[in-house]
Amino acid sequence: MPVSSGEFVLHPDRALPSDPTQRGLARTIYAAICDLPIVSMHGHVDAGSLARDEPFEDPARLLVIPDHYLLRMLVSQGIPHHELGIPRRGEPSPQIDARAVWRRFCEHWHLFRGTPTRYWLEHELIDVFGVTQAPSAASADALFDEITATLARPEFRPRALFRRFGIEQLSTTDAPHADLADHATLRDAGWGDAVIPTFRPDALFYPSTATWRVHLAQLAIASGLEIGTYDAFLAALRERRAAFVAAGARASDHGHRRADTAPLPRADAERLFATALTEPLTAAQADAFAAHMLFETARMSLDDGLVMQLHPGIIRDHSSHIAATYGPDVGFDIPEPMGFTHALRPLLDAFGHDPRFRMVLFTVDETTYSRELAPLAGAYPSVRLGAPWWFLDAPGGLARFRELTTETAGFYNTSGFVDDTRAFASIPARHDLARRIDAGYLARLVAEHRLELDEAVETAVDLTATLPRLAYARPGSPS
Amino acid sequence: MPVSSGEFVLHPDRALPSDPTQRGLARTIYAAICDLPIVSMHGHVDAGSLARDEPFEDPARLLVIPDHYLLRMLVSQGIPHHELGIPRRGEPSPQIDARAVWRRFCEHWHLFRGTPTRYWLEHELIDVFGVTQAPSAASADALFDEITATLARPEFRPRALFRRFGIEQLSTTDAPHADLADHATLRDAGWGDAVIPTFRPDALFYPSTATWRVHLAQLAIASGLEIGTYDAFLAALRERRAAFVAAGARASDHGHRRADTAPLPRADAERLFATALTEPLTAAQADAFAAHMLFETARMSLDDGLVMQLHPGIIRDHSSHIAATYGPDVGFDIPEPMGFTHALRPLLDAFGHDPRFRMVLFTVDETTYSRELAPLAGAYPSVRLGAPWWFLDAPGGLARFRELTTETAGFYNTSGFVDDTRAFASIPARHDLARRIDAGYLARLVAEHRLELDEAVETAVDLTATLPRLAYARPGSPS
Amino acid sequence: MPVSSGEFVLHPDRALPSDPTQRGLARTIYAAICDLPIVSMHGHVDAGSLARDEPFEDPARLLVIPDHYLLRMLVSQGIPHHELGIPRRGEPSPQIDARAVWRRFCEHWHLFRGTPTRYWLEHELIDVFGVTQAPSAASADALFDEITATLARPEFRPRALFRRFGIEQLSTTDAPHADLADHATLRDAGWGDAVIPTFRPDALFYPSTATWRVHLAQLAIASGLEIGTYDAFLAALRERRAAFVAAGARASDHGHRRADTAPLPRADAERLFATALTEPLTAAQADAFAAHMLFETARMSLDDGLVMQLHPGIIRDHSSHIAATYGPDVGFDIPEPMGFTHALRPLLDAFGHDPRFRMVLFTVDETTYSRELAPLAGAYPSVRLGAPWWFLDAPGGLARFRELTTETAGFYNTSGFVDDTRAFASIPARHDLARRIDAGYLARLVAEHRLELDEAVETAVDLTATLPRLAYARPGSPS
Repeated sequence: MPVSSGEFVLHPDRALPSDPTQRGLARTIYAAICDLPIVSMHGHVDAGSLARDEPFEDPARLLVIPDHYLLRMLVSQGIPHHELGIPRRGEPSPQIDARAVWRRFCEHWHLFRGTPTRYWLEHELIDVFGVTQAPSAASADALFDEITATLARPEFRPRALFRRFGIEQLSTTDAPHADLADHATLRDAGWGDAVIPTFRPDALFYPSTATWRVHLAQLAIASGLEIGTYDAFLAALRERRAAFVAAGARASDHGHRRADTAPLPRADAERLFATALTEPLTAAQADAFAAHMLFETARMSLDDGLVMQLHPGIIRDHSSHIAATYGPDVGFDIPEPMGFTHALRPLLDAFGHDPRFRMVLFTVDETTYSRELAPLAGAYPSVRLGAPWWFLDAPGGLARFRELTTETAGFYNTSGFVDDTRAFASIPARHDLARRIDAGYLARLVAEHRLELDEAVETAVDLTATLPRLAYARPGSPS
Repeated sequence: MPVSSGEFVLHPDRALPSDPTQRGLARTIYAAICDLPIVSMHGHVDAGSLARDEPFEDPARLLVIPDHYLLRMLVSQGIPHHELGIPRRGEPSPQIDARAVWRRFCEHWHLFRGTPTRYWLEHELIDVFGVTQAPSAASADALFDEITATLARPEFRPRALFRRFGIEQLSTTDAPHADLADHATLRDAGWGDAVIPTFRPDALFYPSTATWRVHLAQLAIASGLEIGTYDAFLAALRERRAAFVAAGARASDHGHRRADTAPLPRADAERLFATALTEPLTAAQADAFAAHMLFETARMSLDDGLVMQLHPGIIRDHSSHIAATYGPDVGFDIPEPMGFTHALRPLLDAFGHDPRFRMVLFTVDETTYSRELAPLAGAYPSVRLGAPWWFLDAPGGLARFRELTTETAGFYNTSGFVDDTRAFASIPARHDLARRIDAGYLARLVAEHRLELDEAVETAVDLTATLPRLAYARPGSPS
Repeated sequence: MPVSSGEFVLHPDRALPSDPTQRGLARTIYAAICDLPIVSMHGHVDAGSLARDEPFEDPARLLVIPDHYLLRMLVSQGIPHHELGIPRRGEPSPQIDARAVWRRFCEHWHLFRGTPTRYWLEHELIDVFGVTQAPSAASADALFDEITATLARPEFRPRALFRRFGIEQLSTTDAPHADLADHATLRDAGWGDAVIPTFRPDALFYPSTATWRVHLAQLAIASGLEIGTYDAFLAALRERRAAFVAAGARASDHGHRRADTAPLPRADAERLFATALTEPLTAAQADAFAAHMLFETARMSLDDGLVMQLHPGIIRDHSSHIAATYGPDVGFDIPEPMGFTHALRPLLDAFGHDPRFRMVLFTVDETTYSRELAPLAGAYPSVRLGAPWWFLDAPGGLARFRELTTETAGFYNTSGFVDDTRAFASIPARHDLARRIDAGYLARLVAEHRLELDEAVETAVDLTATLPRLAYARPGSPS
């Protein structure tokens, strides 16, 4: 029986099932995939950090402040954002007291029991940084000093870590107007397609937001086109998509509130766009325009082959108190019920059987797994199921994804794990955890004589490496 | 540890839990039910195939083409319907290249890993047809020849298989105008109530469909009544229900889009019906009429004792591209969120406590299990929970049904397994899998000391044989 | 392998996982919490029974008639309420044939297989009452006589059982006009804060109900205020809340149909209240007023520190046939789909970050666990997740609560188990079951090397005792 050894170590069997038959099988399956390269086709790491290759500063800035999972949990227990390195809005750019932020985190290590953060941080601290004691009030300062010193060493610079992590390919997320200079720098440095951009046009698709016109102006500059009409808007988008494709991009990404894809008659789209240029749209008009633009995006994909990723169903900045105090996007995303069956019908009717089109669907509403997503992916050739997203990227969430989708969609209509993270150092931990959960799921199938072990191993390899490469390859290209 | 033996065999413990305590208990429970007769109260097998008793032709026509599960999966990976034996609409009735269809299936055997199709097909190929190698590109032709030859043998004709499968009773699904001649043939051949019809009037309840008037004309012919009014419509339905009851029918079946059951005032129903005879109804009018007809169906059940089965929540022919190319009903059913609590209230208020009425509820939306269906079945005497349906008829889906309904509704408010299949040769496999999952669920209760083993065995027998017989018996009849 | 011993005993490992590794760990964790005092912060026991301390009469009145779980199940199998001790409406207060009611229950013991009732009753019968044979038609009369005799003994009076059960604190549920005399009696008898009231104003917040004016009149009498205006209404509520706080109350409780919390402009609230005094409100007006009153309740909490509990999502008296025959509240509650994300936004925007406010959320719609409740509790400092409620208070329901909330909200944003019961003798059984399920969940984390054993034990103690004390303490008070 395991007891607390007092040691801070990683158990080789962590996150594998405890049933003795399943454990043994899971070890075998995991052994076949644990060292495969990381194919990370959806993330939020800053390409600039790799382009510049400057050392990371300290554990607070590297591990705490950019990680929404950590911030939320600490905030939920009454620690305000500004004690965690997030400045109050309008404050002069603050001096972050990195040591104090780190101490806050260490003091509250127990809050993360049972959460994926516990797993990821343990993995990072031990495996990446060689730490030998758990975070606590007592260990906080020593850990801060130790990790800060470690980060100063050349082998802990971003590029060195990238190679050590075994990352084969990393997709970043980029605004349409992004100049992609960092990606070019890396390419020039001989990195080829190792770090590629993803086209994320949400801010341009919702004309009701305060910043829409700013984004439109940036698009005009980046595309070199004057954008006075809907036609020019589409042309500018196409131009930027071409620039992204040239920079190696494989996909666009869409974080819409709903999955609606009903196209508008062309005249209506033109009229809405023209209206938006001079006055605010109603919420209903903006939603209709956004849905229409998803449809138009699919149409563009037929030509340029960008895979279309859809991440719907989240209310951003649920607390207007928090948004007013700290600005947008500081960890108050809350999911809401949503549906795919109706919402995607117009788009799938038009493009769902077109061999030039591929769509990867994500959700934070697990009720859609067996009811809608698996039936859709198990029917339409263009649809693939993305990895468990955001709150669902956790041991139980990953397991339920397989349990609730496999029987209807199989394994081969899924697109493999994506880490979706801004926390660079957590990438190996996240992929490792997903591999362990998949190994455990497959081990159970073998233990229940529903699959042979050699099939399970082959499937695990496909889930880890083959399927993400395939899902994000240009549709119709030979695989 | 199991390894791939290279042999294609059925493991005796397949689909039982791997925990050693649970495995032993599950074996004991399963042993008590594995040889019980099959009571198949909801299926889609063609009674004509049994009446005619002609040999099945080949494995493609028997195992692939009539099975929506197989077709969907192959289509989802880019194989078009017309390469799987489904003719394009308007094409002259095609020559099916059965060998090519079978080969397609065999080449893609890996797609079915983790799905129930894998389990069912393995069971059928090995246990029914004596095959000794797994489907693959290499084995496809040999398997085709072997199974085709097997099917030509007298002991593989439909009636012989029916007896070998141990089917006690099989319900088919039939249009109200069906002459039930095949059922009569079997009865005359001494089969008694072994093969009985089910009354399925959906096409008559949705006056908005293009084929409504055709179905109405067929109803008029079959009932011998002129149907110029709503009253005559009800009379014709009653007449046909009586004919079904005389042919042994135990139930009606209703595949409505929603579970709505609000009755219309009589004058409104009359007016809607009259309108529908001359002009199209709006979608809202048609939905209201369909809901009303469910209410009226319950009222008819009080008199003739047909058990009312409801299967709501699916959008049929989600892809209009597919429907336009291949016609309706070729595997593009997609579920949508729906609810029972409000929708059933009018009907249950009126008939939910009437001892002459019984209703069996099905869903493809698992969110309704613990939230709505189990509470309803755990309160209303007339309500029973049907087996996991369509996408949920799979090892995980069957297990979740028990996990999510038993604590509120118990075992004795459920109605036992139904196979719901057109794939005749898969019937034993489907019932066997359900028995194994129930045995595993009960074994867990015993292993956790929540039930005694003798109680678990008794419950398993009840789930397998007693409850389906009871659920589909005339309500109020001595059991 | 367990076999039915024929003996009626409690297995020491009941409801613990059967996996050998997890079983051993779960035993260790459970051993650390099994004897901790019961902190029961949400229940429906009658304080009068403790104040009067009269003996309970018989097992039917103690165990069957007040327990909705039992009644529902028996009714669902066709036994009418009036055969279970529930009089028909308008009948002269009936003589309950307690022996016959008890016999009905015993004859149908098999219906409860797999349900929590089976577990609770077994625990009560064996552990509380020393019974040695299972309920059955054969044992019914002997059990009735034996338990009736046992109940007459002094050590089975309410206060003696309270002490024997190890209850540290018990919250009852009380109308705003309640005089709380029973609570005062107990306090005067030296019981201190052992039995405290909870403020439950639902009947006053829905002005559309037939009894609203009666409740308003009772509020006026209890508060000593004339209630002719909305302002006076608020003042009277504040007065009664103060009286509850003085009697030790820690919380208010709100059983609204929806979680809506949108405030009305003050003038609208005044107008609606004035209208309600003279004429019926529409359903929409009543819902708007109820939502507004939740918002106002939160505002009052800032001042008096009552924790706000919300239990939404149930249609009460789903069967109007049953309500007409037996009156309201006889076991026909049916959940419906509902949402928290939108509904709570106004309230959380205003008070969600206020250190003086705390809210405990309950649901019977499990789909909200991972989609809405855990994200809300994992972000807002004021939100805690209540225990699995009503149909979900069962082994599987309790386990799914942890599985679906922990990864996002952690353990420390939950508020510990509450029994929510009117069945006094079932309190220890209910808390014991919850402790076993939590021990099993934590054991799995340890067995999968996701948590150390010492952390699991500490967490279990916190879930059992620390968190309920903290959650229901005055917000901001030192803990």
